[in-house]
Amino acid sequence: MRKIETCISPDLVHLHDLEGKTVVVVDIFRASSTMVTALSNGVHCIKPLKDLEECRSYKDQNWLIAGERDGKQAEGFDLGNSPLAFLDNIFAGKNLAMTTTNGTRAISLAENDSREILIGAFLNLQATVDYLKGTTNDVLVLCAGWKGKFNLEDSLFAGALSLELGWKHNCDATLAMEALFQKAEKNLTGFLQKASHTKRLQNHQLEKDIDFCLHLNKYRSVIYLDSGLLKMKPSEKNKKRLSQQKNSLNS
Amino acid sequence: MRKIETCISPDLVHLHDLEGKTVVVVDIFRASSTMVTALSNGVHCIKPLKDLEECRSYKDQNWLIAGERDGKQAEGFDLGNSPLAFLDNIFAGKNLAMTTTNGTRAISLAENDSREILIGAFLNLQATVDYLKGTTNDVLVLCAGWKGKFNLEDSLFAGALSLELGWKHNCDATLAMEALFQKAEKNLTGFLQKASHTKRLQNHQLEKDIDFCLHLNKYRSVIYLDSGLLKMKPSEKNKKRLSQQKNSLNS
Repeated sequence: MRKIETCISPDLVHLHDLEGKTVVVVDIFRASSTMVTALSNGVHCIKPLKDLEECRSYKDQNWLIAGERDGKQAEGFDLGNSPLAFLDNIFAGKNLAMTTTNGTRAISLAENDSREILIGAFLNLQATVDYLKGTTNDVLVLCAGWKGKFNLEDSLFAGALSLELGWKHNCDATLAMEALFQKAEKNLTGFLQKASHTKRLQNHQLEKDIDFCLHLNKYRSVIYLDSGLLKMKPSEKNKKRLSQQKNSLNS
Repeated sequence: MRKIETCISPDLVHLHDLEGKTVVVVDIFRASSTMVTALSNGVHCIKPLKDLEECRSYKDQNWLIAGERDGKQAEGFDLGNSPLAFLDNIFAGKNLAMTTTNGTRAISLAENDSREILIGAFLNLQATVDYLKGTTNDVLVLCAGWKGKFNLEDSLFAGALSLELGWKHNCDATLAMEALFQKAEKNLTGFLQKASHTKRLQNHQLEKDIDFCLHLNKYRSVIYLDSGLLKMKPSEKNKKRLSQQKNSLNS
């Protein structure tokens, strides 16, 4: 029996055993949504970084740099944390260094102990579910939260993911969030109107970002961490093409 | 505007400012339910203690001692952690020292910084709500959880309390638990069937404890911490009687 559990805050990750697990890091508003969007729009790779200064230093190597703190673009950065900035393949082929208030911290917490790290968002929910069904590891959903506290949108994603996977589990947080997602799914935007982060983004006139991040299954991308870099898993179609190229080179 | 917030785990209490607040500690299965039941059945006071050995030492002073770890009665203790053991005023007038896996730890975490500590359970929900409405402090619900992790029944209580108070707030955990309680309230026992702690208690044949702890508003008692001891607030009726006694003594 495959297992799934939810860690509702990075500050509780020490209570979970990550070894051998696939950790799905989620920060719906907006880090994980932005990562999924950037890589689905041709960005070559993303280096997630905790520190603003370290992130800024990537500029010297001709990387694009994105920095956000408390919902706002950090000074001296090319970009903030809006997924909309990456649409239409505008930065295709670029390398991106990125630091955000909560999301990049959650990634670094899972980096040492887990077997694999994925980036989950509503935007790539089904693709992530399909990928997980094809693997054998147990799964832990790590919610980025807000400065250590529980937040509604990340936890709802955990519920949605678990419902789609349909595995049995013994995790109260997952159970709660499944029930909550079932209540919220018909009108996710309406349900999240009162959420603290929604209000924070509305204060910065970022309603379009909210709507975009709550779009289900816009992308078929599976995003994973590979030696410290976030990349897109090759799709089945691409895998076939690459294998044919390899075969024709060998023949 | 009065504020309410929910801390879903003792391991996250450092993220909350407790100063000037009334902290409602909740450990539905079973510490807070047992405390409410014991004091509502005439127990004079309860000393909540973190440590088994310290608790055991109260035996020498002729206190009743209750000790529980991992759902089971600890060796050498008069009682475990079942509210049913206190029914029918069987221990009326007694002093009780008590230590449990999660509940007593949560109380000690709130002890230094908060203005007042109450003990909340479904058994005394309405009485606690009525008392809070008559005070002026902001409220934090501190869920005892299970060894630091989120648990379903304590968090549901937070939602129920907040719905009854009807105050506005900006707390995602409270928001989530309000929605969840609305979904669960018609069949609380059914909803909690899958919860990890329900299963733990069922394994110990403690179904009767589960049913009892989910009984809404059985008692009108408000339980508070007074210089390290849990006591029952005098009811309005008793207050009147005491004040009349005092007046007749003074006249």
